[in-house]
Amino acid sequence: MDWVDRIEVAAARIAPHIVETPVMRSSAFGRGIEMKLEQTQHTGSFKTRGAFNTLLASEVPRAGVVAASGGNHGAAVAHAAQQLGHRARIFVPEMAGPSKIALIERTGAELTVVPGEYANALELAEREAAESGAMQIHAYDADPTVEGQGTLMREWEAQGLEADTVLIAVGGGGLIAGALAWLGDRRKVVAVEPMTSCALHAALEAGEPVDVAVSGVAANALGARRIGRICFDLACRIGTDVVLVSDGAIIEAQQALWQAHRQLVEPAGATALAALMSGAYVPDADERVAVLVCGGNIAPDPDIALR
Amino acid sequence: MDWVDRIEVAAARIAPHIVETPVMRSSAFGRGIEMKLEQTQHTGSFKTRGAFNTLLASEVPRAGVVAASGGNHGAAVAHAAQQLGHRARIFVPEMAGPSKIALIERTGAELTVVPGEYANALELAEREAAESGAMQIHAYDADPTVEGQGTLMREWEAQGLEADTVLIAVGGGGLIAGALAWLGDRRKVVAVEPMTSCALHAALEAGEPVDVAVSGVAANALGARRIGRICFDLACRIGTDVVLVSDGAIIEAQQALWQAHRQLVEPAGATALAALMSGAYVPDADERVAVLVCGGNIAPDPDIALR
Repeated sequence: MDWVDRIEVAAARIAPHIVETPVMRSSAFGRGIEMKLEQTQHTGSFKTRGAFNTLLASEVPRAGVVAASGGNHGAAVAHAAQQLGHRARIFVPEMAGPSKIALIERTGAELTVVPGEYANALELAEREAAESGAMQIHAYDADPTVEGQGTLMREWEAQGLEADTVLIAVGGGGLIAGALAWLGDRRKVVAVEPMTSCALHAALEAGEPVDVAVSGVAANALGARRIGRICFDLACRIGTDVVLVSDGAIIEAQQALWQAHRQLVEPAGATALAALMSGAYVPDADERVAVLVCGGNIAPDPDIALR
Repeated sequence: MDWVDRIEVAAARIAPHIVETPVMRSSAFGRGIEMKLEQTQHTGSFKTRGAFNTLLASEVPRAGVVAASGGNHGAAVAHAAQQLGHRARIFVPEMAGPSKIALIERTGAELTVVPGEYANALELAEREAAESGAMQIHAYDADPTVEGQGTLMREWEAQGLEADTVLIAVGGGGLIAGALAWLGDRRKVVAVEPMTSCALHAALEAGEPVDVAVSGVAANALGARRIGRICFDLACRIGTDVVLVSDGAIIEAQQALWQAHRQLVEPAGATALAALMSGAYVPDADERVAVLVCGGNIAPDPDIALR
C-alpha cells in the first residue's frame, strides 16, 4: 500500500482513541489564517496519533513497549499503552521538564529520567528494548508513527482546510513526514525549525541526515539531533521550504497565541506561527496560509486558577 | 422584529469584527459532549459580541461610551470602542483582578477601579454617563447586548450543533438570555450558577429579580447582584433548569479542561462543565449534551512560557 492508503487505514484504526481537534480562523496575526489546535489532543500533542497507530497495528509482546522521548512522545506512548493494557517504559532526558514528566507519571508508566538530551534517552531505550524483548516505538522515524501523524492532515482536509500553504514545526520530522506523505504536492508544506535545533535544514544542506547540536526554548520537543530518514526522503522527493526562527520569535508567538485567543502552548506549539509573525516565511499577497499548533505541554502555575 | 430576526441582523453586523470560535467533541468528561471554545474570542470572552453589536447599532455620542463590568464586559467594550474609534470609560470593581485590568488598560480606555463589587462599579458608571452624555453599555440587561450574545448560539448551530441540551454559566444573564432568545424551546438550556453567586436561582425562587450576595472564585465574571430583567422574562417564558455548583467543583472543572485539552480558562469558563462533572446536572442516558466554555481571562504566570 502507498502512504495515502496506509494513512487511511491508520485513521480508521485510531479514530476511537483520539480527539478530532478543532480548527479556527484568525485574523489576529497580520493576515487571515487557518489554525488547527492539535494541542487539545489527548496528552497535549499530535504524538498520540502515532502512538495509538503503532500499538494497534502491532503484536505487542508481553514485555510491553519502550519509548525514548523529549516528553510528548513518551506521554503519548504511556497513555496509549495504559488505555490498551500494555506495560510501558519511557526514557526522557532531563530537559523534558516538570510538566511532561508529571504527565507521564500520571499514566502509571515506568519512567526513567536520563541526563543529557533526547539522543541519550534513545540510547538507553534501545538497550532496554534489546534486553527485555519489549517493542520500541520510535518517536518519529518509523512507518507506523508517520502514518499516525499523517492522519492529522487528512483530518484537517476533511474539516475543510482551504490553505495553499501549511506551516509545520519540525523536530525529528514525524509530523511533517506524515503531512508530506498525505498531501504529496497538492499543497505547499513549509517546515519551521528553531535556529537552535534545525536538523532538517542541516540535512538538506549536507545532502543527507547529519548530527546537529540542539538547544533553545523548544528543545524538549523539537530537539532531535538528526532528522529522521523517512522525513528526509519525503522532503527530498516532494519538496518543502525550510525556514528558521529565533527563540525570541517563538516566545513572541507563544505570547500572541495567549493574548489573541487564550491558547497557552509550549514553545514548539508556537513555532510554526513564529515563522509567519517574524517574517521568516513571507507568503504571497493572495496565498492562503494555515498554521498548525502542535503541542501544549507546559505547566501553568497552579495558583493562577484563582486569580 | 422578534428576537430571532434581531439576532440575525446582529450576526451580520458584527461578523467582520468577531472570531467564529471553534467547536470540538470531547469524551474526557465521563460522556461524549460537544464544546464551544468561546474564550478564543477577541478579549477572551463572548462579551465582545454584545459590545460590537451595541456600538454598531447606535449613534455613539462624541463623549463616547461608558461601561461597568466585572472585567470581561469592560474589556470587550474597550476593545470594540478602540476598533471603531470611540472614546471609552470603563468602571471595574477591584475583584476584576490583575489580568482583566491589564487587558482593559492595553486598549487605551480610561479605566477606574472601584472598591467593592460589580454593583458599585455600575453606580459610578451610571453617574458618569448622566454627567458626560456618554452612552452607557449595560453588561447584560439591554436588548443590543442580548442580541449580540445571541449570535453565539446561532453560530454554534450553523457549525452543526447536535446537542439536545446546552449547559451555560450565568452571571447577570446576558449570554443565556441570548441563547434562549435564539433557541426558544428547540433545545433545552440549563443555567449553571455558582452557589455563591446565584441571581437567577434566587429570582426564580422569589418570582422576581431580587438582590443576592455574591462571592466565590467566579465572582469577577458571574457575580451580578441581580439577574437582568430580560433574562428573567425569557427564563420564565421559555423555561430553563437552574443548577448550582460549588467553588470546588468549578476549580475541578478548570483543572480538567487543562488536563484533558490544554484549555486554560477562568473559573466562569469552567462553570458549565462543573455542572456535568459534579453531577449537579445529570443528563438522561441518551441525552446529547453541549457545554459552553465562555471565558478565559486569567493571567498565566509569565515564567511558564519557558518551562
